[in-house]
Amino acid sequence: MKKTTIHDIARELNITFSTVAKALNDHPRIAAATKEAVREMAIKLNYQQNKLASSLRSGRTGIVGVLVPTLDVSFFSSVVHGIETVMNENGYNILLYQSKEIYEDEIRGVDTFLQTRVEGIISSVALSTKNYDHFIDLKKRKIPLLMFDRTVDEIGVPYVRIDDYGGGFMATEHLIKQGCKRIVHISTDQQVEIFKERLRGYKEALLKYGLPIDESLIFYGNLSIELGKNCIKKLVDEKVDFDGVFAFEDYTGLGALKELKDLKINVPEQVKVIAFANEAFGAHITPSMSTVDQQTVKMGEEAARLFLKLIKENKYYENAPEQIILDPILIQRESSQ
Amino acid sequence: MKKTTIHDIARELNITFSTVAKALNDHPRIAAATKEAVREMAIKLNYQQNKLASSLRSGRTGIVGVLVPTLDVSFFSSVVHGIETVMNENGYNILLYQSKEIYEDEIRGVDTFLQTRVEGIISSVALSTKNYDHFIDLKKRKIPLLMFDRTVDEIGVPYVRIDDYGGGFMATEHLIKQGCKRIVHISTDQQVEIFKERLRGYKEALLKYGLPIDESLIFYGNLSIELGKNCIKKLVDEKVDFDGVFAFEDYTGLGALKELKDLKINVPEQVKVIAFANEAFGAHITPSMSTVDQQTVKMGEEAARLFLKLIKENKYYENAPEQIILDPILIQRESSQ
Repeated sequence: MKKTTIHDIARELNITFSTVAKALNDHPRIAAATKEAVREMAIKLNYQQNKLASSLRSGRTGIVGVLVPTLDVSFFSSVVHGIETVMNENGYNILLYQSKEIYEDEIRGVDTFLQTRVEGIISSVALSTKNYDHFIDLKKRKIPLLMFDRTVDEIGVPYVRIDDYGGGFMATEHLIKQGCKRIVHISTDQQVEIFKERLRGYKEALLKYGLPIDESLIFYGNLSIELGKNCIKKLVDEKVDFDGVFAFEDYTGLGALKELKDLKINVPEQVKVIAFANEAFGAHITPSMSTVDQQTVKMGEEAARLFLKLIKENKYYENAPEQIILDPILIQRESSQ
Repeated sequence: MKKTTIHDIARELNITFSTVAKALNDHPRIAAATKEAVREMAIKLNYQQNKLASSLRSGRTGIVGVLVPTLDVSFFSSVVHGIETVMNENGYNILLYQSKEIYEDEIRGVDTFLQTRVEGIISSVALSTKNYDHFIDLKKRKIPLLMFDRTVDEIGVPYVRIDDYGGGFMATEHLIKQGCKRIVHISTDQQVEIFKERLRGYKEALLKYGLPIDESLIFYGNLSIELGKNCIKKLVDEKVDFDGVFAFEDYTGLGALKELKDLKINVPEQVKVIAFANEAFGAHITPSMSTVDQQTVKMGEEAARLFLKLIKENKYYENAPEQIILDPILIQRESSQ
């Protein structure tokens, strides 16, 4: 069956295409009787108004793009739920795109969203991204952009994240209070603000409790279970003394736990472990893993609320970018006490 | 800075709007010199061609919508990775929408995708969906729709899933071979084909090995950790004898495992447990959980390949819907042996 177009309605009613279009868009210059006739004919001919074409005219699609590294980890999927809830309540729909931590895919994501005319983008940067022009460009083009969690100062847009410095401090202080004196920190590339902050919190906690900062206990690598395993292997191979591990995120922490288990080093008796992010698996593994919770759902909700507030004010980039910083929450489980 | 439009280019060059538009779209009636002038002016004025408007004309957006119940569970996120890989390799981008297992949200997802003019939709139905008109409507409107995993016969479109009957048979047979004689099956609503098939596999395996089908050992509920816990509680409260549990999916299996642990019933010594889906957590819990793997990445890749083949042939709904059925794979872990 051929799709009914606006031209078919015009032909049937013997009026112009433009009159039909105006009538369908409730234009004030069109008589009520004409509007009625057009609407009836539209129903009769089973005409489906092209919402996209209308949105092109109105400039409003009601769609917000959410561009995240991955939805495989509960941190991101749970933030997305928070965003979704608030957006849906406010009549917006969200579409998702995964960058898979790949810079080129992040750019494709931005392009795809622009193509679908989203009203703005909420994002967290991919770990492999070192150039932020695709984000800065959105700002130049006045397309609302809000970042969450993995923010980059250089982009200079509103953002929501937790106090990662406080979280790093809290995790390290917890291990110190449990008796640890030689605490390893496994971290990653320092370009992303939050990881730098967690490391800073780790160092400040050591200083506060009079413990030395030993660079041989600090590791940098790519977020993965393997990273955690390899760090433990290296420490044990090189006979480095340690009694605590603070991993910058849970998958790396899981790797550390697994390797300690394989090497028959008892957790928490010989080595205590804490990580960061409160991924869903942490409560189910043995020993269950201590971590720092990032209030993910709240982070998503706050991100959506701030975004909506700013687009409503219609001067998204006019003031200094607003920031919302949430409190980290210490989750104590078997691996650290 | 005001955005440059096609009108600005027309004004600068003192030619019509329509000539500029045609030149930008490489229309054969426009002279090469004009095209060149338009292109140069477009660059000079920093004009960004509206890809969406072009796609409205060409009818091609290169975007495929993937509508899934949730991305929180590794089953779906992993199928999505398979779809993504093949789509990206073929120059398509995918956008994601989560129905959160809610019927109304599934409809919103379909609408949002139509609004963004996706070239088709790949989906798996929400558990709460009992009316499939929004899917059937896509078919009527000749918009390519492909289902995976949770398929519904009534929709009648191409699909990819595993042999769920075979998977149910395999899981039950495994428990029988490990010595179980009184095997519980925890299932859910039977409207979705795959769960009905798993139950059928369970019953056929019992019959094949001469074990009775005891309806008091079969439960139906909503997919959740709670469902697994409650079934075990009920069995123990009512002093029903059982030595094996086959849960229709992993979260329900996890609930059963947790409740057995809480009640100090040893797994696998007293009760053996197997579930279905091979979620990521299953290998990390204690005892690690046996399950049936659904070849998720392959399922996604096959879904994408079938979809692309069918849209390329340009007669998506002309033949009987093609089906691809993959083999389930038994994953034996501590909970069942």
